[in-house]
Amino acid sequence: MSTAKLEKEFLEFIHEMDAYREVIMLTHWDMRTYIPAKGVEQRAEVVGFLAEKLHHLETSDKMRDFIDGLKENETDDFMTKLVDECEETYNKSSKIPPAEYKEFVMLQSKAEAIWQEARQKADFTMFQDSLERIVEFNKKFANYWGFEGNIYDALLNNYEPGMTTKILDDVFPKLRNSLTELLKEITASPVKPDASILKGHFPKANQKAFTIDILNDMGYDFKAGRLDDTIHPFEITLNQSDVRITTRYDEEDFRMAVFGTIHEGGHALYEQNINPKLRRTPLASGTSMGIHESQSLFWENFISRSKTFWQRYEDLFKEYAPKSFHVIEFDDFYRAVNEVKPSFIRIEADELTYPLHIMVRYELEKGLINGEIEVKDLPALWNEKMEEYLGIRPANDRDGVLQDIHWAGGDFGYFPSYALGYMYAAQFNHAIAKDLEVEELVRQGNLKTIQSWLTSHIHQYGKTKKPLEILTDVTGEGLNPDYLVQYLTNKYKEIYQL
Amino acid sequence: MSTAKLEKEFLEFIHEMDAYREVIMLTHWDMRTYIPAKGVEQRAEVVGFLAEKLHHLETSDKMRDFIDGLKENETDDFMTKLVDECEETYNKSSKIPPAEYKEFVMLQSKAEAIWQEARQKADFTMFQDSLERIVEFNKKFANYWGFEGNIYDALLNNYEPGMTTKILDDVFPKLRNSLTELLKEITASPVKPDASILKGHFPKANQKAFTIDILNDMGYDFKAGRLDDTIHPFEITLNQSDVRITTRYDEEDFRMAVFGTIHEGGHALYEQNINPKLRRTPLASGTSMGIHESQSLFWENFISRSKTFWQRYEDLFKEYAPKSFHVIEFDDFYRAVNEVKPSFIRIEADELTYPLHIMVRYELEKGLINGEIEVKDLPALWNEKMEEYLGIRPANDRDGVLQDIHWAGGDFGYFPSYALGYMYAAQFNHAIAKDLEVEELVRQGNLKTIQSWLTSHIHQYGKTKKPLEILTDVTGEGLNPDYLVQYLTNKYKEIYQL
Repeated sequence: MSTAKLEKEFLEFIHEMDAYREVIMLTHWDMRTYIPAKGVEQRAEVVGFLAEKLHHLETSDKMRDFIDGLKENETDDFMTKLVDECEETYNKSSKIPPAEYKEFVMLQSKAEAIWQEARQKADFTMFQDSLERIVEFNKKFANYWGFEGNIYDALLNNYEPGMTTKILDDVFPKLRNSLTELLKEITASPVKPDASILKGHFPKANQKAFTIDILNDMGYDFKAGRLDDTIHPFEITLNQSDVRITTRYDEEDFRMAVFGTIHEGGHALYEQNINPKLRRTPLASGTSMGIHESQSLFWENFISRSKTFWQRYEDLFKEYAPKSFHVIEFDDFYRAVNEVKPSFIRIEADELTYPLHIMVRYELEKGLINGEIEVKDLPALWNEKMEEYLGIRPANDRDGVLQDIHWAGGDFGYFPSYALGYMYAAQFNHAIAKDLEVEELVRQGNLKTIQSWLTSHIHQYGKTKKPLEILTDVTGEGLNPDYLVQYLTNKYKEIYQL
Repeated sequence: MSTAKLEKEFLEFIHEMDAYREVIMLTHWDMRTYIPAKGVEQRAEVVGFLAEKLHHLETSDKMRDFIDGLKENETDDFMTKLVDECEETYNKSSKIPPAEYKEFVMLQSKAEAIWQEARQKADFTMFQDSLERIVEFNKKFANYWGFEGNIYDALLNNYEPGMTTKILDDVFPKLRNSLTELLKEITASPVKPDASILKGHFPKANQKAFTIDILNDMGYDFKAGRLDDTIHPFEITLNQSDVRITTRYDEEDFRMAVFGTIHEGGHALYEQNINPKLRRTPLASGTSMGIHESQSLFWENFISRSKTFWQRYEDLFKEYAPKSFHVIEFDDFYRAVNEVKPSFIRIEADELTYPLHIMVRYELEKGLINGEIEVKDLPALWNEKMEEYLGIRPANDRDGVLQDIHWAGGDFGYFPSYALGYMYAAQFNHAIAKDLEVEELVRQGNLKTIQSWLTSHIHQYGKTKKPLEILTDVTGEGLNPDYLVQYLTNKYKEIYQL
């Protein structure tokens, strides 16, 4: 067969896989937003069936033949990378028996529904059995995949290729020590922002309208996406022209929805701006969870928690905010939205204590996977670590171990991405300053120019560049936590007058 | 292979087909409610792909083998009917070449999006090309399927097995003559309900809350369904525990949403109350479009436009209605919601003129399929027939030929079901009165007892009984338009004091 013909048939096969992916994503979106309670059980079977179909294609002899056939021939860069990507998935997926994989996917779907109810009732025991089964599946899968150092590496690499437990065990304590040091200084400072000024009834519809204006300024394309409500906010890509985000509202605290929506918007910009040439292939996706998170955290922290951002958007904010917010002085407002205060919920955490939340989860899941921790002990261990790193202890499981959807979704090895992404974001933030007058652009509300820079340096490549390749291409160096520490130190020395 | 083993394998195969059906339904629901505009193109490809997969299974050699194998063996009633149902679909579907079917499904998806825009802009020419292609596909399919009398029968039978153009050409003029006669008397009557008293701002949220209360009384299970907004209201079954309805609101005229929601609720009750034993099989569905419509029209017309219904719900209505509605006298209100007035939009039509809307559509689509009418002439012909039967002429295509989604969705032969369903409903209404004190139950708000009667006589059977079988089992006779004529005559003689 000619290479051209083989490539054409291969692409048709890839598009077929992508059709399954798209409806699986639609099903997930529906199950997390609008599905009625009683519809879940049968839908879980349906998702299991579809995932099995996709898994079957990814690991089929036909796929193996395409890979072998195309590797023998001269192909262009796009085709070469597509084949490589498919081969990685093939190697990974073909190690898991199809029946086990199907069972796991069905377990995920059901576990998410159980977790939602357990979380609502703050009752970890309801969820314990599901989680035990999910942990066992993860350990089994890690063993199927194999690993050199720690068993946890096998899971970590699903989200951040090339990352190891060894590196994390080296970098995380460094970051933690710096942050703990800074946190001590902040706690000791007599200067305290008064965040209570931000509390007060702010109708959901107005919060939503404000965030929609910001998303539009950022360049989020609402004709290729939408914004819905969920318990746990997420971004999901149905196709490159249908990239949806969700958020959660607290009418007594606008910060959750405003910063949360900008965060998910950052993820969505990445997905909406991947080179259209990669459409309907597995390359049309963010290259790793860490790089993905760098985009959301860049927008959430480095842009939308900055002084310039609020200078720009103060008037707009007041258009939507109830009158009680109009009397707040700008400096008080800026300092209040940047208050450092250890709190229970990760997605509501301030910039400084956020990475400490990640360390709690990282250590627990590493322990679970290594068999050093049992699921039933999680709530107590969670609370202990929270007390150790953040100095606070959750009063119930909803504010503790049940707060995140990740484990219910079967995702182990994912949490470290948040801290990695934060470090990457700080490195990108340093790099962009060499090309653009970021503060001036924010002052003009010209966020789209910032988005364009991110697109040309990061977004467009999708999975055609590996995470470390992007990092070094953009910043000229590898992973370096110093930029994050420096950024936080500078910012908080000013706010807390240290 | 033992019969038990063959049946087990057959059911697994059936469940696989049902998984495709469920995600196709989810995709349709999403495309009609929440999909962003730019996401449609790729999604249309995805639906086409999935429909082709399902079509492939329905017409596969494996299916043929199951059918042949199971027909050779002794099976119980459920299995026998399931095999028959699959055989009918096999015979029908296997006559259409897979590639043509896929093209048709993709055309449907795209045409629906084009129709939405054309309707919004009231510009039929935007939609003409799509509709021409849809008509050609329908003619081609009708010829593949074959027919004895009129080519249109082949399409009609997709929705109402056993029905013929010959019967419709006999029954419809009779019904039309009776209705036209009654309409003349009404028009001549000096007594005129004043429907203008019903106009006035009625916030959408309040309309919605009122209809939700009614749906709950009817027994619609919100834990196994949901209510959303669309341009064109519909009911869609994802699975028996996820039966969704949509509606459309006019804040200046509550009647559209109130009667529209009860109508879709009637469809949903049918689907929610099919015997759970039939789950995940093609028997778990309403037996025909006509019987389905009999359920929605029963609730909409015979129940919710009755005097007793409004006596029962007057107080509740006033709880949600703005003050301007509180001064309306009951008799004026009852007569106003039953005003007979020829109007443009079918789904907003009154009980009496409604069947005349169906005749316009029936005659046009019969003409299109028989090659006696061209698509480009539709707008003019539509307007002429509206003038002839209803005495009014639409000012634009939005109020005329573009108002319904059916043709965009590829559905020809469907419209007659509405008039058939109405006649069936009148027959059921006559039958239920022998068993239940319907007026008394409505007066008590005990709509669930009515629903239980419908479930035990109609809903539970799904497709295990054919439409005429249900009709004769429940009413003791075949199709008879006299009950509908009698019902309308009695009701409107009182209202218009004829």
